[in-house]
Amino acid sequence: MADENALETKPAQSIPERPKDGASEAAPEGEKGPSKSALKKAAKEKEKAEKAAKRKAEEEAQKKAAAANDVSKNDYGELPILPEVKPSSTPRVTLAELASKYNETTPMDESGGPEVVFRAIVENARNQSAKLSFLLLGQGVNNIQAVVAESPELSRQMVKFCGAVPAESVVIVHGLVKKPKEPVKSATVSHLEIHIRKLFIECKADNQLPLQVADAERPIPAEGEEVQEEDGRPTVNLATRLNNRVIDLRAKHNLAIFKIKHGVTALFREYLDSKGFIGVQTPKLLGSPSEGGASIFEVKYFDRQAFLAQSPQLYKQMLIAARFERVYEVGPVFRAENSNTARHLTEFTGLDLEMEFAEDYHEVMDFLEGLMLFIFNGLRERYQKESELIRGIYHVDDFKLPEVGKTIKIPFSEGVKMLRDDGVEIGDFDDLSTPDEKRLGRLILEKYGTDFYILDKYPLAIRPFYTMPAHDSPAHQPGAKDPNTGYSNSYDFFMRGQEIMSGAQRIHNADFLAKRMREHVTPVDPEGPGLKDYVDGFRYGCPPHAGGGIGLERIVMLWLGLPNVRLASAFPRDPSRLAP
Amino acid sequence: MADENALETKPAQSIPERPKDGASEAAPEGEKGPSKSALKKAAKEKEKAEKAAKRKAEEEAQKKAAAANDVSKNDYGELPILPEVKPSSTPRVTLAELASKYNETTPMDESGGPEVVFRAIVENARNQSAKLSFLLLGQGVNNIQAVVAESPELSRQMVKFCGAVPAESVVIVHGLVKKPKEPVKSATVSHLEIHIRKLFIECKADNQLPLQVADAERPIPAEGEEVQEEDGRPTVNLATRLNNRVIDLRAKHNLAIFKIKHGVTALFREYLDSKGFIGVQTPKLLGSPSEGGASIFEVKYFDRQAFLAQSPQLYKQMLIAARFERVYEVGPVFRAENSNTARHLTEFTGLDLEMEFAEDYHEVMDFLEGLMLFIFNGLRERYQKESELIRGIYHVDDFKLPEVGKTIKIPFSEGVKMLRDDGVEIGDFDDLSTPDEKRLGRLILEKYGTDFYILDKYPLAIRPFYTMPAHDSPAHQPGAKDPNTGYSNSYDFFMRGQEIMSGAQRIHNADFLAKRMREHVTPVDPEGPGLKDYVDGFRYGCPPHAGGGIGLERIVMLWLGLPNVRLASAFPRDPSRLAP
Repeated sequence: MADENALETKPAQSIPERPKDGASEAAPEGEKGPSKSALKKAAKEKEKAEKAAKRKAEEEAQKKAAAANDVSKNDYGELPILPEVKPSSTPRVTLAELASKYNETTPMDESGGPEVVFRAIVENARNQSAKLSFLLLGQGVNNIQAVVAESPELSRQMVKFCGAVPAESVVIVHGLVKKPKEPVKSATVSHLEIHIRKLFIECKADNQLPLQVADAERPIPAEGEEVQEEDGRPTVNLATRLNNRVIDLRAKHNLAIFKIKHGVTALFREYLDSKGFIGVQTPKLLGSPSEGGASIFEVKYFDRQAFLAQSPQLYKQMLIAARFERVYEVGPVFRAENSNTARHLTEFTGLDLEMEFAEDYHEVMDFLEGLMLFIFNGLRERYQKESELIRGIYHVDDFKLPEVGKTIKIPFSEGVKMLRDDGVEIGDFDDLSTPDEKRLGRLILEKYGTDFYILDKYPLAIRPFYTMPAHDSPAHQPGAKDPNTGYSNSYDFFMRGQEIMSGAQRIHNADFLAKRMREHVTPVDPEGPGLKDYVDGFRYGCPPHAGGGIGLERIVMLWLGLPNVRLASAFPRDPSRLAP
Repeated sequence: MADENALETKPAQSIPERPKDGASEAAPEGEKGPSKSALKKAAKEKEKAEKAAKRKAEEEAQKKAAAANDVSKNDYGELPILPEVKPSSTPRVTLAELASKYNETTPMDESGGPEVVFRAIVENARNQSAKLSFLLLGQGVNNIQAVVAESPELSRQMVKFCGAVPAESVVIVHGLVKKPKEPVKSATVSHLEIHIRKLFIECKADNQLPLQVADAERPIPAEGEEVQEEDGRPTVNLATRLNNRVIDLRAKHNLAIFKIKHGVTALFREYLDSKGFIGVQTPKLLGSPSEGGASIFEVKYFDRQAFLAQSPQLYKQMLIAARFERVYEVGPVFRAENSNTARHLTEFTGLDLEMEFAEDYHEVMDFLEGLMLFIFNGLRERYQKESELIRGIYHVDDFKLPEVGKTIKIPFSEGVKMLRDDGVEIGDFDDLSTPDEKRLGRLILEKYGTDFYILDKYPLAIRPFYTMPAHDSPAHQPGAKDPNTGYSNSYDFFMRGQEIMSGAQRIHNADFLAKRMREHVTPVDPEGPGLKDYVDGFRYGCPPHAGGGIGLERIVMLWLGLPNVRLASAFPRDPSRLAP
């Protein structure tokens, strides 16, 4: 439906400025009577205000007179919020289209290409002189220089207006495509420039932004590093950037991070869809803290209590019991852990999957290896530009992949041995601390030249109750003295010495599962609310299965070598951050 | 790593049965001393138990003797929880592979195909006689008949064992592929049957299941309909099915529903990925109830309060302000509405998107129309079998799509007129009630022959504060007396008379947005927590944009004509359901 009563374009001069905070100095001073000095001050202020009003009136009159003589008066200004829709308007172009259409070798006559219309972000505007302004106009990852020069058809007022557009404003530009005398080094489309004919502000940015995009383009300080100056500008710390995330995300490498993040999920799905998986959604609201209550968020659910899912673990297994055969989920995961580290979030994206296997859980471990390599190779092929852009900011080594068919898969016990040989004191069945994991990552990188590897057969005691004990585990012997010693059919995947996926064969026999729940290091009640349904699912016949859960933000962080996982979350959540 | 100490296959006879609930009738009767009759009863019970023990001992002895003479003793039984992994085991086949390899026209010699090995679900097992048992073996949507007949190489004990496997047990079958004399009508692979050589139970199902899969295969009663008998069996109501969802989901049409649901999200992503969208994840944990506090869940967030996102609305707009240009999200949406209807869930999956447009929000509305038609046509092409299976259960008319290029898009005001012409009393700016919407759906179906249509230009007063008022709305006039009358640049999409998507152009000017927030029918404070960051995002320059939010479960429900949205959620959540 065409809109009626379309508003006209307002000329630039008529736009009322939004009053700035604290701009009015004549604010009331409180409830008590004014003092003598206050009265004096007030009189002074009044005089000042009167002068300002007079000056303003004069300026307005001048402007009005100038506008009457302004040949360009209909060619610039601020658009109304809802401009008239012209059915016959010129189709818009993109800078990418221009760049490829008029490439360096295309001959171009003196008058330039045809007039083009496009939307752009003003990255920078300056009045070179009263007769000449320059703008840097951005669009996605591209930008181009634009020139506004006084001429019989283009007024000095318009030159002034264009050179004063606040950075980050959104504008509609009509201009001629020309070749600059010299390539414009500051622009990505360096072999072209735009000679502006018309310029309208579609959405004006404030003159003062709380964060400069240019500052956001620089790296955050590494963990523990002091805030430093760089090129004479103070480095803006992470908190300030995240407080102003809308501006921070405008940094081109930040957009690239989220394109890569999107790429990881797309590659994850592409691989699994091609292998017959069904993508599912499992509930995030739970009636009971089924996986153990330590780090779970409570929700007020009408007149009762609910909990936020810490993983889709029990539900994806129930779907295997429901004969779905192979399932995956991409969804939020909530962890009420009061960890304020560079690698923890209270809300992150889980890439979870679960599948039947025929005879041995290594079928699944190898499948997951294939999945990860597919993702890594896909990122290499499809996101080279983005990766380079980010690594140009964060000077990190390229991610080292193993040779084809030679992924490092070593038993946990061998990892422990490598650490001991390196001087670490650690028990056979101890969990690896974060520093130990990182150290092992360095040792493996030195020995095998890969940033990606798998540890297999973790100690049973440090895995969740649903983990299948290994064959030789006492857990399989009825009446064993300590059923929590020995190993389990479980594995972790690592990138640069940090865990990105945890997985295992799960127990598919209800009675054995109930036994393991009771005898686990942290026992849970198999008859308890939320768990009985889960255990009973296996009483209806369920095939052997295994799976894993991957932290999306961690993959992105470690692939790119980012110093903080928050950089891989659009609006990160941690114990002290719930906004924006 | 190969597992050591592999367990041996246990012969069938040695498997201890799990005691059934309530099986022991000699349970203690409480704390007070036993009465005379109780003593008498106890004596009787004792005698009974002794008899039973004697009988059991005799049986055991018989069995032992029989086992010694059992030629098949190593060919059947229950597998241990973690069987030995044999590196040289026979590759497994699928029923689908068998069905296509040995089709009806393939000549097959008398001895049948080669021996094959596969995993299957026992759908049904029965002892026809002491010498012959039949099983119906399922695998995904396929099933096949299997025969176990006594022979010099196959013992009567094995025939008995195979005919008594509880339904829903998971088994590993070794058998010969043969042609049956007559096609087996009860099996999908009707032109073949399996002559069993070996059969091992991998995971035994309970003898008594709380719900029969056969019962789950039948439709739920329609809303308001009484629970009825069908073919002499009582119809199992929805609550019982959902309480036993793991079994309920085994009904083949239920799996089909989730394949189609997966298909909708895959088609949604496929379309948007091809149009340059970035898939994103926005936070579900919010510091404040930003979209209005009525139907929002509260979360205990360490020592403060958080809220669950009712939609990604504000965040997807902030990503547009952050120059992401086109974004979408597939994620959970939480609504604390105490609505116990067939179309409400407290947690559902939102398919959300937001995009810049050039000149008119109808560009986005038309884009969304293209998206929906792509999804519908994709479902038709890729999920015909699944749709037919489901529509065979729920006898619903095929979904009527508009002719190509002729989607019905009518102004809200015209919808009101159609309802009035049909006798409905309704004001110009009243919201449509659910019955009115359904009635309008019928009227449009009658008039235009389509189940899919769009209502455009909704009254401003019934849309959220961020909705762009239409050109002719008083909201655009400074100092208008009632800025909440008139229409808005917003639209709803319908399927079978029920809303599946709501969308609009959003206000991209911070000052105008703040004004609309204050003057809205339900005013909100633009300076309030959670909202200031949102409003400020537009002070940094933001292009015009529009978008929409789609309810995934509703699309699935309405595409298939299901009587309840819960059927389209694997583990649905409503005010009274948080489990399983």
